[in-house]
Amino acid sequence: MTTKAYVVGVGMTKFEKPETRDWQYWDMAREAGTAALADAGVPYARVEQAAVGYCFQPSTAGQRAVYELGLTGIPVHNLNNNCATGSTALMVARQFVEGGIADCVLALGFEKMSRGPLGGGARGGAADVGGSTSPVARHYGIMAAAHGFEASPPTAQIFGNAAREHMERYGTTEVQLAAVGAKNHRHSANNPNAQFQDVHTVDEVLAAKTVHRPLTKLQCSPTSDGAAAAVVVSERFVTEHGLQDRAVEVAGQAMTTDTEESFASGSCIDAVGRPMSRAAARLAYERSGLGIEDVDVVELHDCFSVNELLTYEALGMCEEGASGKLVESGATTYGGRWVVNPSGGLISKGHPLGATGLAQAAELVWQLRGEAGARQVAGARVGLAHNIGLGGAAVVTLLRKA
Amino acid sequence: MTTKAYVVGVGMTKFEKPETRDWQYWDMAREAGTAALADAGVPYARVEQAAVGYCFQPSTAGQRAVYELGLTGIPVHNLNNNCATGSTALMVARQFVEGGIADCVLALGFEKMSRGPLGGGARGGAADVGGSTSPVARHYGIMAAAHGFEASPPTAQIFGNAAREHMERYGTTEVQLAAVGAKNHRHSANNPNAQFQDVHTVDEVLAAKTVHRPLTKLQCSPTSDGAAAAVVVSERFVTEHGLQDRAVEVAGQAMTTDTEESFASGSCIDAVGRPMSRAAARLAYERSGLGIEDVDVVELHDCFSVNELLTYEALGMCEEGASGKLVESGATTYGGRWVVNPSGGLISKGHPLGATGLAQAAELVWQLRGEAGARQVAGARVGLAHNIGLGGAAVVTLLRKA
Repeated sequence: MTTKAYVVGVGMTKFEKPETRDWQYWDMAREAGTAALADAGVPYARVEQAAVGYCFQPSTAGQRAVYELGLTGIPVHNLNNNCATGSTALMVARQFVEGGIADCVLALGFEKMSRGPLGGGARGGAADVGGSTSPVARHYGIMAAAHGFEASPPTAQIFGNAAREHMERYGTTEVQLAAVGAKNHRHSANNPNAQFQDVHTVDEVLAAKTVHRPLTKLQCSPTSDGAAAAVVVSERFVTEHGLQDRAVEVAGQAMTTDTEESFASGSCIDAVGRPMSRAAARLAYERSGLGIEDVDVVELHDCFSVNELLTYEALGMCEEGASGKLVESGATTYGGRWVVNPSGGLISKGHPLGATGLAQAAELVWQLRGEAGARQVAGARVGLAHNIGLGGAAVVTLLRKA
Repeated sequence: MTTKAYVVGVGMTKFEKPETRDWQYWDMAREAGTAALADAGVPYARVEQAAVGYCFQPSTAGQRAVYELGLTGIPVHNLNNNCATGSTALMVARQFVEGGIADCVLALGFEKMSRGPLGGGARGGAADVGGSTSPVARHYGIMAAAHGFEASPPTAQIFGNAAREHMERYGTTEVQLAAVGAKNHRHSANNPNAQFQDVHTVDEVLAAKTVHRPLTKLQCSPTSDGAAAAVVVSERFVTEHGLQDRAVEVAGQAMTTDTEESFASGSCIDAVGRPMSRAAARLAYERSGLGIEDVDVVELHDCFSVNELLTYEALGMCEEGASGKLVESGATTYGGRWVVNPSGGLISKGHPLGATGLAQAAELVWQLRGEAGARQVAGARVGLAHNIGLGGAAVVTLLRKA
C-alpha cells in the first residue's frame, strides 16, 4: 500500500418511495455525483476512474450515469453485490487509490426500484442467491425446516426466522426488537434526506402490520429510489488541493463473503451473516489499529431490526445474545456509548440497494466533520459503517477525522 | 504502481450455443476457474480477492460461482460492462495487483445466455445503452436518419450501419468484409474451445443469410454460453512460487469510455467505438512502451466483421480506411504481419459477454507460451487484446512473455 485513501466529498439525493419523483437513475446519479464533487470542490475533470454500484439497471448504466457529469472517457467499473453494492463501489475506489493506481476516484451508487418489498427490476432480485441449489438457498431451506419456520425466499422471512432464533436462544423480546425500529425512526426525524421523518413509540412499532413475525412494518427497510456518492482521493491529492479540512481518512476496511461458518451450524443467525460481519469487523479493526472502543458513531445495516441487534454482537458492542438489552439500555442512541444509525438507518432513511453503502459513508463524513446539524453526534472522531448483502458480502469501513 | 502484474494461469470452457449443455453459470465458472488455477498450479486458498464479470446473471452470482471453488470468505467484486465485461474483470484484478493491494486475484467471467441475437436474461441486454434519452441512443437515431439507415436498436443494425458508412467513405467492399468472416472461421477450425470449427470460403460468407446488410450470418458473433478465467499475480508471487515459466506480463492496459468524439461527428463508425478503441490503444502503448510494431498476435473484438476492420485502424495496423485492403492482403492471418484472432474470434469462437475478454487473454497466454497447438503463431512474444462494449467501454491489453 503506497498511500492512505481519504473521502473528501460526499453527496446523496433524498431517498424516496419509488414513483414519488419523476426521475430516472441517471437523474439521481447526476444529483448525488454533482453534490459530492461540489462538497469536495473537485471538478469532474479531475476524476480518473469511476466505480459505480447498482443492482437493477442495465449493463453500462454506470456510464449512462457518469456521462451526465462529463464525457471525459475515464474507465467506469460497474459493480453489484446485492445490498452491499454501495460499499463494494467504495471499496474498489479505495483500493485503486491506496494502490496508487489513481489519485481521484468517484464512487457512485444508485437504484431505481419498483414498488413492493425490495422491488427490483427484472434482474434476480436481492433474495436471489444463486438458484435453489446454491449453498445459501439450500441452507435457508434446511434451517427453516429444522426450526419449524416457513421455508420461503423473501428477505423478510429469512431475517424474521433469524429474529425468532435470537428470541429462542437468548431470550430477546419483541419489545427489544421494536426498540430498534423506534430509535431509528426517531433519529430520521432530523434527516431531511430520509424517506420517512415520522416518530413512533415502541408500542406503535409493535402494533404496526406484521411483515413476518416478529418483524412489523416499522422494523423493516422500505423499498426506495435514490443515489449517493463519495470522492475518494490519495494523501497527495488532499495536500495538493488543500483539502485537509474536508478529508476523512479511510482508516481500515474489509469485505468478507460466506464461509462454512455461514452454513455449518444450521443457524438462521449464521446464514444471514453474523459470522461474515464479525470477520469483516475483525479485519477492519486489525487494518486500522482501531477497536469498537474508539468508535463514536455507527451506520449499520438495519435492513430489519434483528440485523441491527446481530450487528451489535458482530461488531463487539456487546456479548453474543446481549444486543436486545443493549438497545433497551439506550447505549446506542444520543447520550449513550455510541450513536447507531443517526441517519435513521435503512429502516427509516430507506434502502436503494446500490446507494445504501455510500449513503452510510456520507452520513459518517458529515458526522465526523461536525456538519450533521440537528442529528450531530457531539465530538465524533471515528465512525464505523457496516453494509451487508445476502449471497453474500459484508463490508466494514472505519472512517477517522484527524 | 508498486509491482507489475502477471497472468500465471488461464482456463476456459468450450463456448456453446445456449441450451446445448445442461449447465448453470456456476458449472461453467467452476470448470473455467478450476482450469485456470490448475494451469497456474495455485490452489484456490491462495486467491485473495475475486473480480467476477457477467451481464445477465443475478447480483452476487460471482459469489455463487466462486463458492464452487471454495468457501474462503474472500472479497468478491461483481462487474459488468456489456461486451467488455471480461476485460473489466481482468483490469480490476490487474489494478489490485499492481497497486500492491493483493498478490493473487482471480478474474473470472461467464455468461449463460438465452437463444436469439445476443440473447440475455431479463436484464437490459447488450444493446440497452441507457434508455432512449441517452447520448448513445440519441446519436444512433440521429446518425441512422442522416444516412438513411434504419434507426433500430439491435446491435447488428448499429454495426451494419457502420459497415455501410465504411463502404461509402473508403470504398470498402462486401468481399473485404466477408474476408474477415472467412479468416476467423478458418482459424477456429484449430480451436477445440470454439463454438464453430467449420471453414467457409469468402463466397460462402457472402451467400449466407443477411442479418443486416451488408453483414451476413457468418460475419456476426453467435449467441453463446461459456466461461473463462485468469489468475493475476504480483512479481513477488511469481518469484515465491517459481512461476516464471508460466508468467505472462501485463505490460500495459487501458480502458476508455465514450467522449464527445463518439457523437459529435454524426458518424456511425465513431458511435460504435473507433475513437474509444483508438484512445485505449494509445494509452496502452504509452503505458507499456510497446507499439503495434512490437505485436505478434492480436485477439480483437470482431463482434461483427466490420468491427475487426475498424479495430485494425484504431490499433494503428493501417491508415484510416485501409483496413479492407489489409485483411484482403493476408497481413492478418498466418504468414502475415500479425495473426489476428487465431482463436476464431467472437465470430467463430463465440461471445458469452462476461467471458469474452478473459477468453481473449487465455488465447494470448497460450500463444505467448507456445502452447497453442495447431493454431500456434510462430515465435509470438507480444500479444494484444481488444475488447469493446457499447454503452460503452474499450479495453486494450498488451501481454508480453519474457
